[in-house]
Amino acid sequence: MPNLITLTTDFGTASPYVAAMKGVILSIHPEARVLDLTHAVPPQAVRHASFFLSQCVGEFPAGSIHVAVVDPGVGGERDMLLAAAGGQFVIAPDNGLITGALARLGGPAGVRRLENPAYRKSEVSATFHGRDVFAPAAAHLSRGVAPADFGPALEEWVTLPTAGPRRDPDGWAGEVIFIDDFGNLITNLTGEHVASAPAGVTINGEDVRPVRWARTYAEGEDGDRVMLLGSGGHFEVAVVNGSAAAQLTAGVGDRVFVKLPS
Amino acid sequence: MPNLITLTTDFGTASPYVAAMKGVILSIHPEARVLDLTHAVPPQAVRHASFFLSQCVGEFPAGSIHVAVVDPGVGGERDMLLAAAGGQFVIAPDNGLITGALARLGGPAGVRRLENPAYRKSEVSATFHGRDVFAPAAAHLSRGVAPADFGPALEEWVTLPTAGPRRDPDGWAGEVIFIDDFGNLITNLTGEHVASAPAGVTINGEDVRPVRWARTYAEGEDGDRVMLLGSGGHFEVAVVNGSAAAQLTAGVGDRVFVKLPS
Amino acid sequence: MPNLITLTTDFGTASPYVAAMKGVILSIHPEARVLDLTHAVPPQAVRHASFFLSQCVGEFPAGSIHVAVVDPGVGGERDMLLAAAGGQFVIAPDNGLITGALARLGGPAGVRRLENPAYRKSEVSATFHGRDVFAPAAAHLSRGVAPADFGPALEEWVTLPTAGPRRDPDGWAGEVIFIDDFGNLITNLTGEHVASAPAGVTINGEDVRPVRWARTYAEGEDGDRVMLLGSGGHFEVAVVNGSAAAQLTAGVGDRVFVKLPS
Repeated sequence: MPNLITLTTDFGTASPYVAAMKGVILSIHPEARVLDLTHAVPPQAVRHASFFLSQCVGEFPAGSIHVAVVDPGVGGERDMLLAAAGGQFVIAPDNGLITGALARLGGPAGVRRLENPAYRKSEVSATFHGRDVFAPAAAHLSRGVAPADFGPALEEWVTLPTAGPRRDPDGWAGEVIFIDDFGNLITNLTGEHVASAPAGVTINGEDVRPVRWARTYAEGEDGDRVMLLGSGGHFEVAVVNGSAAAQLTAGVGDRVFVKLPS
Repeated sequence: MPNLITLTTDFGTASPYVAAMKGVILSIHPEARVLDLTHAVPPQAVRHASFFLSQCVGEFPAGSIHVAVVDPGVGGERDMLLAAAGGQFVIAPDNGLITGALARLGGPAGVRRLENPAYRKSEVSATFHGRDVFAPAAAHLSRGVAPADFGPALEEWVTLPTAGPRRDPDGWAGEVIFIDDFGNLITNLTGEHVASAPAGVTINGEDVRPVRWARTYAEGEDGDRVMLLGSGGHFEVAVVNGSAAAQLTAGVGDRVFVKLPS
Repeated sequence: MPNLITLTTDFGTASPYVAAMKGVILSIHPEARVLDLTHAVPPQAVRHASFFLSQCVGEFPAGSIHVAVVDPGVGGERDMLLAAAGGQFVIAPDNGLITGALARLGGPAGVRRLENPAYRKSEVSATFHGRDVFAPAAAHLSRGVAPADFGPALEEWVTLPTAGPRRDPDGWAGEVIFIDDFGNLITNLTGEHVASAPAGVTINGEDVRPVRWARTYAEGEDGDRVMLLGSGGHFEVAVVNGSAAAQLTAGVGDRVFVKLPS
């Protein structure tokens, strides 16, 4: 599906920035199909966007072009990238944003610098490369321009460091890496670390209890705390029909420790 | 328009769940046209989603496929449904969500259980049937798979009980069933109950006054309270250029009593 | 691209109003491509919507149809408009909303009153002209109905008054006209007024300092204040990786004074 272009940004929806990008794409390639993934990435939250994409790009068909713009360094020295992986493409600033998508798509088949002025706006602003560089690149790519025409292949780009879970004598130490709109606390622990009911869980050193090992978010009464492996394979702490983030006042980066049965 | 698939969820927009559903649909049926209706249903608010759909499905063309996922019971015992009505289709968990759409479309022409493993993901998670069952069903249906191929016809399914308005000697007793983004209080009373200017209105027993019977939201000064029949035919209490929900601190489920002229 | 219809409203996303408009459009013109620009215009904020469109319509291809509904006067005496400009179309209530788009598109090539009952719903409600008049008009226009068939040409319509910047002995006096989702304060001053580093800036008479003249939002440390010309050509006050609106508790309409170097 070479005319599918998805958009992932932190631009919000009351601002005209996403609309401008859509206009640019459709002016260059009227047959492009533009699909919103999200514009509600928290401002400048590169990690959030990287994880977001890691959880959904695997579902898209070959040829899909994902434009992701969370770009605190816009106008500065950072490169702009066109990455190919698993038959799909990711277009993003070189700040680590592509990390999650590339990992999910089996690693990069090639990463290039967006450099060719023929495939950007004739005038490029200092503050809005989404409109002036990334959107035009996606539109031209969807029209059939070859990746090699956009710029030189790179050997290096920014990859977000992953503080992987750490094995302790008593269990696994990890952290909250994402909080979804339900308030579920999604961690960097997976089924590899927690395959069956753990003995307990702490967040920032505080025991979360009572808490039950569950298969779904609905096991128990409203307000009960559950631990489970979510649909992306990650260990999560959730509250039945409620928000774990609110009930436990937890946030991204909080330390999570899963005690394994002794 | 058999390739139109609409999405209605409580997934929010900062989470990757809607994006994953879109990818699944387009992987199965690249020509599908995916249309967002809303992803801002309050978490687990099945009634909100049911009313939401009742107010818009009537506008869609025959062949439209509406996927609605507000699914507190995901992974539990509840069925998953494919309902046909008025030439359109609704795909949703069996928790009452389809009530409003079916009523608006003239009642069900047939309701089936989504059961055929050929039309779901090969692996179905316990927590994300939107991605693993509902989205694939919609995509296959839009490609031309016959409804009968998805599973057996059902005789029974969950219908949301409607606490219909009650006639009192002095007027009609109903309740707030929906609050829109303007803060307008939409009730289960309609033009059948309140065809002309009532003598007054109370919310949870408190007189709303002064309040004026109006034809539009703009009759009066900013901040004035008005009662009117809204665009969906429901009796509403609104505030001119303001929020009735905020000004009257009213919410869904609040009792509304309309005093008829004596 | 005569089948592209964009939507800009203050309807919010938890309400069924946008969904109803989409259904109406696709029922009349199944091949129409409906594109969300925003539904997060603050309630009744006609100026916000006008500026929003001014910042993005210039990117769209000829033939695009922009439906914009921020309509506090719905059901009252205000006209409904179909405006042509720069090969594109804007459909909106006659309350000034079209001001920004027309200015950006080089001024109106023609403005008509939406009047022909053949191109609206057979029954028009008093409160939802988005569904009953504006959406049908866009759909019929996209199917090829000539603008002249919708109603008579107008000589006058509402234009938002622009309180243009005022030259003072010491600099330029303007105001905040838009706050984007990052909290950047966008003013009605442009590169015409502030072409190079000013001597300083006040908001509502209070000195904003320290503040640095910058080329991008990222120059400095987190929390630093910068002044720059944004991607739309407007003078902005921003905070590096933060919100200027929050840090300076500033809002739309606040007075901005730019001191020029003496």
